Amino acid sequence: VRAVAPPDRSSAPSALRADSFKGAGDFGPRVERAAVAALKAALVAQLPEGGLRDDPATLAAFGHDESNTLFAFPETTAQVQAIVRACMAHGVPVTPVGARSGKSGGSLPVRGGLSLCLEKLDHILLVDDQNLIAVAQAGVVLGALHAAVEAKGLFYAPDPNSLDWCTLGGNVAENAGGPRALKYGVTRDHVIGLEWVLPSGEAIRLGRRVHKGVTGYDLLGLFVGSEGTLGVATEVTVKLLPLPKVVLTALVLFQQVEQAAQASTRLLQSQLLPRCLELLDDVALAAVKGAGLQLPQASQAVLLIELDGPTEDSVLAEAQTLEAVCRAEGALEVRVARDETQRAGLWAVRKSVSGALKLFEGRKVSEDVVVPRARLGEAIARFKALGAAARLTVATYGHAGDGNLHTNVLYSKAEQKPEVDALVAAIAREAVALGGTLTGEHGIGVAKRHLLTLEQGPGLIAVQKSVKAALDPLGLFNPGKIFP
Amino acid sequence: VRAVAPPDRSSAPSALRADSFKGAGDFGPRVERAAVAALKAALVAQLPEGGLRDDPATLAAFGHDESNTLFAFPETTAQVQAIVRACMAHGVPVTPVGARSGKSGGSLPVRGGLSLCLEKLDHILLVDDQNLIAVAQAGVVLGALHAAVEAKGLFYAPDPNSLDWCTLGGNVAENAGGPRALKYGVTRDHVIGLEWVLPSGEAIRLGRRVHKGVTGYDLLGLFVGSEGTLGVATEVTVKLLPLPKVVLTALVLFQQVEQAAQASTRLLQSQLLPRCLELLDDVALAAVKGAGLQLPQASQAVLLIELDGPTEDSVLAEAQTLEAVCRAEGALEVRVARDETQRAGLWAVRKSVSGALKLFEGRKVSEDVVVPRARLGEAIARFKALGAAARLTVATYGHAGDGNLHTNVLYSKAEQKPEVDALVAAIAREAVALGGTLTGEHGIGVAKRHLLTLEQGPGLIAVQKSVKAALDPLGLFNPGKIFP
Repeated sequence: VRAVAPPDRSSAPSALRADSFKGAGDFGPRVERAAVAALKAALVAQLPEGGLRDDPATLAAFGHDESNTLFAFPETTAQVQAIVRACMAHGVPVTPVGARSGKSGGSLPVRGGLSLCLEKLDHILLVDDQNLIAVAQAGVVLGALHAAVEAKGLFYAPDPNSLDWCTLGGNVAENAGGPRALKYGVTRDHVIGLEWVLPSGEAIRLGRRVHKGVTGYDLLGLFVGSEGTLGVATEVTVKLLPLPKVVLTALVLFQQVEQAAQASTRLLQSQLLPRCLELLDDVALAAVKGAGLQLPQASQAVLLIELDGPTEDSVLAEAQTLEAVCRAEGALEVRVARDETQRAGLWAVRKSVSGALKLFEGRKVSEDVVVPRARLGEAIARFKALGAAARLTVATYGHAGDGNLHTNVLYSKAEQKPEVDALVAAIAREAVALGGTLTGEHGIGVAKRHLLTLEQGPGLIAVQKSVKAALDPLGLFNPGKIFP
Repeated sequence: VRAVAPPDRSSAPSALRADSFKGAGDFGPRVERAAVAALKAALVAQLPEGGLRDDPATLAAFGHDESNTLFAFPETTAQVQAIVRACMAHGVPVTPVGARSGKSGGSLPVRGGLSLCLEKLDHILLVDDQNLIAVAQAGVVLGALHAAVEAKGLFYAPDPNSLDWCTLGGNVAENAGGPRALKYGVTRDHVIGLEWVLPSGEAIRLGRRVHKGVTGYDLLGLFVGSEGTLGVATEVTVKLLPLPKVVLTALVLFQQVEQAAQASTRLLQSQLLPRCLELLDDVALAAVKGAGLQLPQASQAVLLIELDGPTEDSVLAEAQTLEAVCRAEGALEVRVARDETQRAGLWAVRKSVSGALKLFEGRKVSEDVVVPRARLGEAIARFKALGAAARLTVATYGHAGDGNLHTNVLYSKAEQKPEVDALVAAIAREAVALGGTLTGEHGIGVAKRHLLTLEQGPGLIAVQKSVKAALDPLGLFNPGKIFP
């Protein structure tokens, strides 16, 4: 099975650029130009034509303008191994790159060196409707996997916003989530096997092709979400579910965001487990006004809720509970999508929020904190108050059901960046104080590494670093990420 | 909240004894008696009265008769830390012990030394129906957690057979499963936070109290299922689900085990996801004959299937599909439990299989392999053929839906053990050849470490050992387990 071609990359939101993180701390010495030249000479014969690039067009496309950066596009696991081994031999940092749709700068070569681009490993190898598993190479676009799996009546749940261009390997590196994580879990919950190239260049197979197994340590668990710092996936085996039979999508309008937050908390306490429970506040709604959503003036917040289940009757029964709970919290209106077009329309609005917020004032920083579900309303109010005190606009939207808020700080002038960064840090501090975590699905990367100690103690960080040192003793695999 | 008292330990199946594994290879030198004496002298003042024992009654109760073994019963995390630190200082191996209900010998002190018994850490600290989480100490009995959680209308899914006496800490160490793993996953899928004492004696908190989060490496994933070799959990935070509203339990009778296996495969291909799908073959049925199950002579295999869902109608609709699929595969009869008593009766039969098989010929070795779901029938036939060739009885039962078979080799005389071990190895080899794995939920421990290389290559084993060495450089934390 050949995956569909990835969509035009220009449709992706502009990738994070290395210079966005100029202020984010010391990444260690940049690699010497001579070492990169020696690496290039050693590798060029081992890769297919065009498999090694440092031309200006590639540099521009990947958002870099440094001359000590090299881009490799291997087509086989053996080529990935050769590249990693050569990088280690030449002391050149190697940074795995998927579709560059990440939100924490994980694929940025902050010390220069080789960018290991997996996009040519783009074959779906197996969709097995007997055993309910799929096997795909790391560069397969998630949307292509969804399509291949759904064509057989099966379901792969993770659905990050970027699913039409992000890759499975990137999902593994970042442990990607998405709206459906509420009911179905994140990437880690679905990956059962990996082919993995270690920082040593050795390729190992780990995990299994069956749904269950506890042989040895769960290195799968360790590698998924390791943000490209412990090696790189070349092939991924995932478990599949039967495609849910009935899906119902509803948009619930509220006057105030506090009511929407409260309704979200109550819904999860009423024995319902929607597959998605998304929130958009007033700023997010204002940003997507042009996206085709007609709302009464009074509605300053919405919940986008999706239920799935085995029969129409069972889903409709849950929808009645949903409506009753939302009405009790003051919902103005409950709109149910009556067909696939209406459903797609509601999701198009939700998916356009991230881009629309960027255009709203010209610039933004996107947060990704998680707070306990029952403190959602309190968290949103505190974040807005922090924004007001800093005279910056805070927009909140995201996976309310998980307590995972994409709190965005909007601004217009580059000079405001220090105040923006201070506000982002304050929001992170507040989320941790509320009993939450720094990042629900974006990862730490370079974007949040200076905040890591807000959440994790020195003992926990030391253990992680000892694991990193055991697997990557030279410290050349995606350096400068996660740890401050 | 105080947990209910653990049930009388004498009701537990007799624990694996160290001498069961006399032939399982070299565990390294047994600890010197003098080192244990020095450790005892150092620790006695740091633990509460009765917190350190080496009396004959304790030795007998724990199935050991070695004089260089010491049992510690800490009541606080600080005491656990003191014990671990003292063991490291005195060069004495330390082996975490839960309820000794494990199936792979993980809690056996194969080199002697200190057995770290967590049973006094038995408090349920929080059941939060606002945020759908629970926090409990490692020594809490799983059944007590179930009761506390279900009293609030919530659900903690993992349900190993030993749930009335096994502990949450043991579940974490072994990544325990159970019948409901088919729909709801295993322990790893539910643990979101841990307090963990490292081999260094340092206590760290990892994970979180919210359902979602990707800050740093997923050490939770690594530690869950590490079989007591990377440290020990003292406190566990789990996520909870709403208690499923409607549950339907059915017993389906087949003439032949091949039909039952085929029906199991077909059920999972018919868009159904039962929460449990268990199989018992002719030998297992013969063993439990006295347990109150009346079956026609012609029925030589059964499936025990449990569906859950949001409404009675939706579950009944799925039950109709279930019946149609099973009838098409030749089911003789589909019995649906009509009330809670009948339901409990069916499960009592299923739960009595393990013990009944032990009594059947006097001795048994229990396998725990997993095979791809679609090859279940083929696997059972091959295992039985291997048994026939070795003139040993093979019983097969277990989690058919997961492909996780508790294949048991029955025998009567100690002299048969070498042939039994050879048959067990042959079954393991066959499972791996079929695309499966050595263990679905019991772990490797000492029971299967000599088989590990059947499934895992040297590269994968080396990575695991490097992680182990990074965290336990002295190699004193539960030595002799997992790795050959």
